[in-house]
Amino acid sequence: MNTTREDSPAYLEKKRFFDSLMTVYGRKTVFEALQDPATYLYRLHLAKSNKPAEILTDIICLAEQKGAEIIYHDRQALSRISKNSAQDQGVAADLQLRGYQHYDKFLQDNRQQKYNLIALDGVHNPQNLGMIIRSACAGNIDGILLPQKGNAQIDPLVIKASAGTVFRAPLLRCKDLTEALMDFKQKGAIVCALSSHATTELKKFSPEKACIYVLGNETEGVSHAVQKLCDESVKIPMNNGVESLNVAVTAALIAFR
Amino acid sequence: MNTTREDSPAYLEKKRFFDSLMTVYGRKTVFEALQDPATYLYRLHLAKSNKPAEILTDIICLAEQKGAEIIYHDRQALSRISKNSAQDQGVAADLQLRGYQHYDKFLQDNRQQKYNLIALDGVHNPQNLGMIIRSACAGNIDGILLPQKGNAQIDPLVIKASAGTVFRAPLLRCKDLTEALMDFKQKGAIVCALSSHATTELKKFSPEKACIYVLGNETEGVSHAVQKLCDESVKIPMNNGVESLNVAVTAALIAFR
Repeated sequence: MNTTREDSPAYLEKKRFFDSLMTVYGRKTVFEALQDPATYLYRLHLAKSNKPAEILTDIICLAEQKGAEIIYHDRQALSRISKNSAQDQGVAADLQLRGYQHYDKFLQDNRQQKYNLIALDGVHNPQNLGMIIRSACAGNIDGILLPQKGNAQIDPLVIKASAGTVFRAPLLRCKDLTEALMDFKQKGAIVCALSSHATTELKKFSPEKACIYVLGNETEGVSHAVQKLCDESVKIPMNNGVESLNVAVTAALIAFR
Repeated sequence: MNTTREDSPAYLEKKRFFDSLMTVYGRKTVFEALQDPATYLYRLHLAKSNKPAEILTDIICLAEQKGAEIIYHDRQALSRISKNSAQDQGVAADLQLRGYQHYDKFLQDNRQQKYNLIALDGVHNPQNLGMIIRSACAGNIDGILLPQKGNAQIDPLVIKASAGTVFRAPLLRCKDLTEALMDFKQKGAIVCALSSHATTELKKFSPEKACIYVLGNETEGVSHAVQKLCDESVKIPMNNGVESLNVAVTAALIAFR
């Protein structure tokens, strides 16, 4: 049996493992991530050019305690790993987080459940993304469907705004949001857009099935392509002529309904 | 009758008028504030050193339409008015906002009402303050009790995060929060702190009287002096071991109960 074949169980398992890793960078970020006992560290990447620093000693010590591989790279190679040489500070880490998985896996495991998800369709502001993760993690949300493109990337700003909850939040990775939503719909879930133009109020909306609440871009709202897939559209009524709520506030109101 | 006497009706009226003014600064901020037809502009202050610019022409035009006094100052005098020479960009405006008043006035007008207020006890982050104002203005909150010291000042960052709602939000000014809270208590209101250590859940708390919900500092929570005045303390239960919510998220959950 040739284990390099793309449909072989060994290949798929390996792919699933690498897909489950999240690479974070920045000294404080990596240090905080490693302090969480539930964070599994696969590899710690360090720039050979790093000068000695207390926080680096602490990071290496934590990595050794977790039994992780520690690799030293030249500056350019590290940049390719962190994908952000301006902010990585010579440190990156491949983490396996307890809540981070491909949405496929979630769908398999929760086929019959009446879950509630939040899907993000163009949330660009890192602080908003971090706050959404924090509120969803604290509230009654079973997963945050996060497309790889089109939203803020999980960077130190996001991690800070999440108050570190990104390391334990149920994050469901997908490539393309419309594809993922179609998969969820096929398995019986309802897709519901938040929109100030909707007629139904969030408070009066109580779906009988699993539901995915889609939050759109800070300025543009939910994209046209995603809107077309939505079964429902709900609004949050506002006083004093206020036209919209911050997207992270909207997420919190859904998470704590 | 000597109208300069500090207890004369004319003096008190004049004081009430000047107390009702909010001075904002920064070109974009002032421009946006003046675009709201409900904003009354008392005085526009400009630095003599300003070079011609389109936005300045627009600001002057709006000020003239509003029949306001326009005063040109040397740079130092303008700094004393804006209290932020680094960010005023040579422009400041004394505004009378529809929702901005001293808490005394609110107490007088709402003696028998079952109002809900949010009081801020050390919210330092301008973005949090702006978001709190936006959510409270959109939700079911009758006023935001904002002490002059100890919280972020209303600056361009706050105004931006408030999405401009600061110009219409019900802001109740006070000098000292403990003094104001004692006044409210004396008039029959309940004071309730938000605290993760509380035993009562926010959802299960339904006061029969007017209520002031106190939100504390982002790190420290409600101050000791204010805690001593609180009749109640409520929490928002959280999942996944999350220890706290962002203060602006907490405000939104109160505003949209």
